[in-house]
Amino acid sequence: MTAEHETLGDAHEQAAREQRVTDEVVASFEGAGDARLQHLMQALTRHLHAFAREVRLTTPEWEAAIGFLTRAGHITDDRRQEFILLSDVLGLSMLTVGMNAPASASATESTVFGPFFLENSPEIPRGGDMGEGVKGMPCHVRGRVTGVDGAPIAGARVEVWGADEDGFYDVQYVGDVVQARAHLFTDANGEYDFWTVQPAAYPIPHDGPVGDLLAATNRSVMRPAHIHFMVEAEGFETLITHIFVAGDEWLGDDAVFGVKQSLILDFERHEPGEAPGRRVDEPWSSTTFDIVLAPTGA
Amino acid sequence: MTAEHETLGDAHEQAAREQRVTDEVVASFEGAGDARLQHLMQALTRHLHAFAREVRLTTPEWEAAIGFLTRAGHITDDRRQEFILLSDVLGLSMLTVGMNAPASASATESTVFGPFFLENSPEIPRGGDMGEGVKGMPCHVRGRVTGVDGAPIAGARVEVWGADEDGFYDVQYVGDVVQARAHLFTDANGEYDFWTVQPAAYPIPHDGPVGDLLAATNRSVMRPAHIHFMVEAEGFETLITHIFVAGDEWLGDDAVFGVKQSLILDFERHEPGEAPGRRVDEPWSSTTFDIVLAPTGA
Ligand SMILES: [Cu+2]
Ligand SMILES: [Fe+3]
Ligand SMILES: [Fe+3]
Repeated sequence: MTAEHETLGDAHEQAAREQRVTDEVVASFEGAGDARLQHLMQALTRHLHAFAREVRLTTPEWEAAIGFLTRAGHITDDRRQEFILLSDVLGLSMLTVGMNAPASASATESTVFGPFFLENSPEIPRGGDMGEGVKGMPCHVRGRVTGVDGAPIAGARVEVWGADEDGFYDVQYVGDVVQARAHLFTDANGEYDFWTVQPAAYPIPHDGPVGDLLAATNRSVMRPAHIHFMVEAEGFETLITHIFVAGDEWLGDDAVFGVKQSLILDFERHEPGEAPGRRVDEPWSSTTFDIVLAPTGA
Repeated sequence: MTAEHETLGDAHEQAAREQRVTDEVVASFEGAGDARLQHLMQALTRHLHAFAREVRLTTPEWEAAIGFLTRAGHITDDRRQEFILLSDVLGLSMLTVGMNAPASASATESTVFGPFFLENSPEIPRGGDMGEGVKGMPCHVRGRVTGVDGAPIAGARVEVWGADEDGFYDVQYVGDVVQARAHLFTDANGEYDFWTVQPAAYPIPHDGPVGDLLAATNRSVMRPAHIHFMVEAEGFETLITHIFVAGDEWLGDDAVFGVKQSLILDFERHEPGEAPGRRVDEPWSSTTFDIVLAPTGA
């Protein structure tokens, strides 16, 4: 056998050995009782192995990946979710939300959930204020929730959460403060309105491994200013989305890929004076966000 | 527009939206200074997104994945490495080791590193005993380390670690016990030999999320009995491997896919009496493991 033949033979043998590992792992999930779980694990195995083979993953790179996941696990606690952040900066969150919200030219577009949602937000009445005591310019948001046919949806649950003027959510503060977070219900006309504070652009938490990854790849850690919405109503797909503030400098460079053109709204600035339901003695802003829900199972 | 047209249009719009997310994330890594890191992150993004799109990942499934990684992170500490275990049961470890060890018909095959390696093992002399005070039948291992040309490699570092009769490694015991773990060097003829205990089959640690995954998919948690080797010598590729015990009932069903035919050795059983370098007054076993190292960069 010549040296050249040996090299070719080795390359074939190498490819065959690698394929054998993948086949063995895929086969090991053959006996899973749950067909969906079997499908998920077999597909995960195939793509994970295809990735490793495509990049010819080295041992130090594999070790770095193990170290990265370990640090992500250790920084994660009740108030910090580094794995959601990782999913966000890899666009997996945006992709998943997009796959699970039906694409319909007529329904409101969805975007990422983010790591700052908390269960059990306080309920506020129509016109209520979730921004009391929160740093930032008062901001009034109103809108109407309808189906794709334009019919108003009464009693829809509108959950809202946002950052303050410094770009922080309540969960990021020490202690059990609840701020700029609430839910309310639409009235008989499908209408809602509430007060909060004008949202500010903010960096995602970047003192952990995800921040290190973004730094190492020269990616921005900033998110453009936004307010989170989750809207639920019986017979309709739950909508998870944000509204963004037109003119924000980070709209073209969102660390988590959440921006969609249709979700960018004008926030109008007003001088102190009469405002919906109150007098405001400082500048305030307002915007209108009409929401269209897709029917369940569309 | 008919309803049918609308459905078709929506499907196209959906696919386009999903592709747009992937393209945006891939583009975000365009500016990474490090070309290798850029390649890794772009390939990871493509395969991760291809996986999610292929299985049409649902929001509850995404949440379950986040929860799984979170639990894996929280159970991982100095002595427990759930992410390595995860990599092992998905065959990623085996694939990576296989890609980084040159396939050569003539060199000894590699296998997984496993989660039980510890730095700074004690050094033992030739013929030394790393099994003193360890539960199990005394076992003598000898062999010769050579290059693919058959020339002996003197001064090769042979690192060895194994489980005791109960299937436990020293790190799995409370306290700082060191057992069945050591390193030694080959002599001028490339030869080595040492005493340890006969290895036993054992379950991988399965009280964490990886164990839950194996249970949910009806996979075995067992590993066939084996002894770990890591062999290093200048001018040669480092070999990470095991030797397995012929006849073990789990050889065909290793939880981490580490078994290779060429690594299965006969362990001969002997009655009490004279043994290499000592008298043994209980039954003992012996095996021979000749090791062939591939030259660096082959
Ligand atoms: Cu793939
Ligand atoms: Fe946010
Ligand atoms: Fe082991």
